[in-house]
Amino acid sequence: MAKTLLVLAATLAAAPLAAQTAPQSPTPSRPAPSAAEPAPEDWHDIPDDEILLIQLASGKQVAIRLAARFAPAHVANIRKLAAARWWDGESVYRVQENWVAQWGDPTEKKPLPPEILTRPPAEFEIGAFTPAQRLSKPDSYAAATGVTADGWPIASDGKAAWLSHCYGMVGVARDSLPDTGSGSELFTPIGQSARRLDRNYTVVGRIVEGMQYLSALPRSDAAMGVYATAAERTGIAWVRLASQLPPDERPHFQVRATDNARYAAMMALRENPAPPTIATGLNVCDLPAAIRRRP
Amino acid sequence: MAKTLLVLAATLAAAPLAAQTAPQSPTPSRPAPSAAEPAPEDWHDIPDDEILLIQLASGKQVAIRLAARFAPAHVANIRKLAAARWWDGESVYRVQENWVAQWGDPTEKKPLPPEILTRPPAEFEIGAFTPAQRLSKPDSYAAATGVTADGWPIASDGKAAWLSHCYGMVGVARDSLPDTGSGSELFTPIGQSARRLDRNYTVVGRIVEGMQYLSALPRSDAAMGVYATAAERTGIAWVRLASQLPPDERPHFQVRATDNARYAAMMALRENPAPPTIATGLNVCDLPAAIRRRP
Repeated sequence: MAKTLLVLAATLAAAPLAAQTAPQSPTPSRPAPSAAEPAPEDWHDIPDDEILLIQLASGKQVAIRLAARFAPAHVANIRKLAAARWWDGESVYRVQENWVAQWGDPTEKKPLPPEILTRPPAEFEIGAFTPAQRLSKPDSYAAATGVTADGWPIASDGKAAWLSHCYGMVGVARDSLPDTGSGSELFTPIGQSARRLDRNYTVVGRIVEGMQYLSALPRSDAAMGVYATAAERTGIAWVRLASQLPPDERPHFQVRATDNARYAAMMALRENPAPPTIATGLNVCDLPAAIRRRP
Repeated sequence: MAKTLLVLAATLAAAPLAAQTAPQSPTPSRPAPSAAEPAPEDWHDIPDDEILLIQLASGKQVAIRLAARFAPAHVANIRKLAAARWWDGESVYRVQENWVAQWGDPTEKKPLPPEILTRPPAEFEIGAFTPAQRLSKPDSYAAATGVTADGWPIASDGKAAWLSHCYGMVGVARDSLPDTGSGSELFTPIGQSARRLDRNYTVVGRIVEGMQYLSALPRSDAAMGVYATAAERTGIAWVRLASQLPPDERPHFQVRATDNARYAAMMALRENPAPPTIATGLNVCDLPAAIRRRP
């Protein structure tokens, strides 16, 4: 086994060797790892009409959880676009290094179906900030951050709240004016989180499976990362809600509820790693999405 | 032109249309964009022995700026490893989605040259925190963050300071014990910043060119993202310091000095975007590396 990083992205793996050999300073705030395990009842099904599937021409599939509750006008458009098969045959046409992958119609000439609201109101912010779990410190972009009971990363200035543009979140591309994004052109941050888009773009979802089929696409050197030629684009075979597929072809996902002591213990473990690791903090974008396929 | 995001990753491009049509509220703290332009004297040459080049078997090249001042023992090892051609014929053997790309010898069996310090002291932290520019707010991982006069992202708890594991920074992989990383196995964060590694891993540099040749590599689904087969690895043709190449083959890089009003104005512009964009903040990892090829 190669020398590898101890700290895993998606797990709470401790360092067995270090635990045996390093000085053990008492860390009373550190819960037992078993206390952070989800209980069976913590897993809740995500409705089939809140899962948007992108089937790439390569045969790979990307699954997006839609934030139907926080961006209802845009999600309504997205559902209609999928029903109209509007994205079928379109492409991922923009991949900009350390910024975003973006997909839809690169020509902007394809007519939208008549049932689409072409200029829905901006849904940059949502109502009151009532996270199920709150992080202990403010961060660079918000006075308060946390996670909703159903797992969405959220931030607030004390008045308004908004979903955070973390890695893998899905936003609505638009022109200069706030209400010019229909939801037909979507993007996801593929590098450093794109938090400076917070409150300025509508967040409609999060990629919960297949992110690597967007994040590992070749970058474009052209302006804003828009591929200079059609040949560079990644084709999209089709886009559908899971609920628009035959029942036996639907993938089913579950999200872990955060409004319980087990999730709080998971956060505390991350904020208080086992010695000799030094605790440095926890950011809202480092909270795991906590999504799984339904067993 | 496709509908695209207004906010660019690497520029301060304002939104012309919005500037013409949106209400203009006075923002006295927002400097004129011209005040944020670097002066010719702000660009300083990076010494050839602080640039490490990785020539991939594909012909693509990655350039790393070495943090010689902050991790002297590890950088000394890295220079000797390059001189000994130790990495030639090795590979990028680990690419884990939203975590790191890592390179070196996947077998851990290749002997290190005798002149290498096999267990250099951990260089996780550095001395006093004296940033040339400081960010206005603490972040999730540090009481204070900022940038050194020569452009390194830095964080502090008020006592110790450390380089931040931002996207594209280069760290030393190791086993469990802090002093087990020689510098022969290196990694770079390819997704969300890896700030929870701060103070726990030695940072030896930052990728200043060619990051896309690591960040867009196929992800491994195997444990910790270590490719399960040799065929998946990306070959390394050679690794050298620029100073170890013939003079006419060396790329030359410059870094923008930050200890001046122009850099401060650039930061202020980023923290106070033009209306109608809402100011949300600025994180140390969103400060541009401000490196260019020598004109």
